[in-house]
Amino acid sequence: MDKLHTVYYFLDLAGTFAFAVSGATAARQRGLDLFGICAIAFTVACGGGIIRDVCIGAIPPAGLTTWYYLATAIFAAGMTIGLYPVVQRLNRPVLLFDAAGLSLFAVTGAQKALSYGHNGQVAVLLGIITAVGGGVLRDILLNRIPVILEKEIYASAALAGALIVVAGNYQNVLPGDWIAIIGLIICFTLRILALRYHWNLPSFPKNKNGNV
Amino acid sequence: MDKLHTVYYFLDLAGTFAFAVSGATAARQRGLDLFGICAIAFTVACGGGIIRDVCIGAIPPAGLTTWYYLATAIFAAGMTIGLYPVVQRLNRPVLLFDAAGLSLFAVTGAQKALSYGHNGQVAVLLGIITAVGGGVLRDILLNRIPVILEKEIYASAALAGALIVVAGNYQNVLPGDWIAIIGLIICFTLRILALRYHWNLPSFPKNKNGNV
Amino acid sequence: MDKLHTVYYFLDLAGTFAFAVSGATAARQRGLDLFGICAIAFTVACGGGIIRDVCIGAIPPAGLTTWYYLATAIFAAGMTIGLYPVVQRLNRPVLLFDAAGLSLFAVTGAQKALSYGHNGQVAVLLGIITAVGGGVLRDILLNRIPVILEKEIYASAALAGALIVVAGNYQNVLPGDWIAIIGLIICFTLRILALRYHWNLPSFPKNKNGNV
Repeated sequence: MDKLHTVYYFLDLAGTFAFAVSGATAARQRGLDLFGICAIAFTVACGGGIIRDVCIGAIPPAGLTTWYYLATAIFAAGMTIGLYPVVQRLNRPVLLFDAAGLSLFAVTGAQKALSYGHNGQVAVLLGIITAVGGGVLRDILLNRIPVILEKEIYASAALAGALIVVAGNYQNVLPGDWIAIIGLIICFTLRILALRYHWNLPSFPKNKNGNV
Repeated sequence: MDKLHTVYYFLDLAGTFAFAVSGATAARQRGLDLFGICAIAFTVACGGGIIRDVCIGAIPPAGLTTWYYLATAIFAAGMTIGLYPVVQRLNRPVLLFDAAGLSLFAVTGAQKALSYGHNGQVAVLLGIITAVGGGVLRDILLNRIPVILEKEIYASAALAGALIVVAGNYQNVLPGDWIAIIGLIICFTLRILALRYHWNLPSFPKNKNGNV
Repeated sequence: MDKLHTVYYFLDLAGTFAFAVSGATAARQRGLDLFGICAIAFTVACGGGIIRDVCIGAIPPAGLTTWYYLATAIFAAGMTIGLYPVVQRLNRPVLLFDAAGLSLFAVTGAQKALSYGHNGQVAVLLGIITAVGGGVLRDILLNRIPVILEKEIYASAALAGALIVVAGNYQNVLPGDWIAIIGLIICFTLRILALRYHWNLPSFPKNKNGNV
């Protein structure tokens, strides 16, 4: 299963890169300066994992200690600044990488919570937070309502991936690696289909008399 | 004192429910989708307690591990979605429940910080954060200035409740349970009177020449 | 080196005071009430250190346990409310104190992370967060894009100070106290020069065709 870990490592870097690009692009569009762009890129890439690690007691958080997360975030920020037209043309692969990052972060986030001995509910919640926390922090810092709360199946795909990991943990038929791969594939597929067909979760009209 | 714990348990659920309804209602009014409404409901109900637990080292936070908090939040979100006219008519009981939750969270938040061996200042600050942290996170996520920083006696009532718990901890006359009940009643009464008579803390006019 | 610690203590209080004044002033200008002004003042003064302590496992965070931080923040809030014209005239010393606080928080933040046994990257990142985290939280709570992400050399000065502490930690020529003093002076000087000459980091024009 050494190959699997190489795949994980590649997905991890690809996801981190895509998350950082999404942060750097949004920061650049808001006119932030060099430091601001790097800070938002790093926040999107590592913010969710840092919240997870603080909540499960993995101190210091991996997002702060691991050099290649920081390097990837700064590289993505530099690319977004120096090669903006290229990054814009990369729109489609970036969305693919983003879906890869979402899936991997949801699955590994849930796995890490379980490996620290916490229960299934904690693992599901922290799997989602690992996957979407960085994007939520980006939107808070850029002063807008987090996009994942408003549209498209995004956090719900992460929920599916994390749920599969936790459910798989309570059975003895399939080995954990297989469960993780199934979680990854389902989360990734859900996200890609949602992008392709503009799937949204329902939202609800305001009540006409509503002035609560 | 078993009865007391039944009362606590009921207040805890009622408060969680009221906090979650306030989150779900605000999220629905902003047009968030199904996931967004559930996420905001859960954040209001559990966010303050999660910050407290991270600060006192109670890992993992009770808000993440306890199934009936999550269940209550999802139930409240479902009700706000499916029975919106009913929830609107419940406006008054929800405000009562909210005051109950505020009081209970302030008192039990301060108690939990003390029981982890921290000093009185930590207990007061974390009592307030337990009580109002969820609402502050709701307003940050919905991209508005936290309402508790602007108007009505809300956090100040939580401060009173937490202060009473901490003061009571330094004396030997009354048992802890009595102190907690006194704190609950004073916090609850303050909040209800503030609602009834529109009590506000002072705010301050901008200086005419003020362009600091 | 006892004198040094007296200087540290004075800088610490002066920085806390300046940070709290910046929070209280911004909160007053937004029309927050008495509690809101005190809460924002305390958040700016202690928020960065609290995030650092949670990330390095220094539980409970020093910002919550230390009485003179809270007292300084409330004193600064009271002064901003009662003596607003005086505080406005103090604009220049407050900027000096703010630069002092920035430098000290960056240097001591990095030192504290190192003293807990974490690596250089963690120390640099948490040095910056200690120095600027409170200001970022202030801007999030007041519903605006954090000013440090947009303009002036501020976080970059903190980065310089924290980098010097970490670099100094890997050599054996100069004692730690000297390193800290060099870090302080360079961070402070950078910040003051940036204020004096309106130095900004580069930001980047939006691409004309940019609709990512």
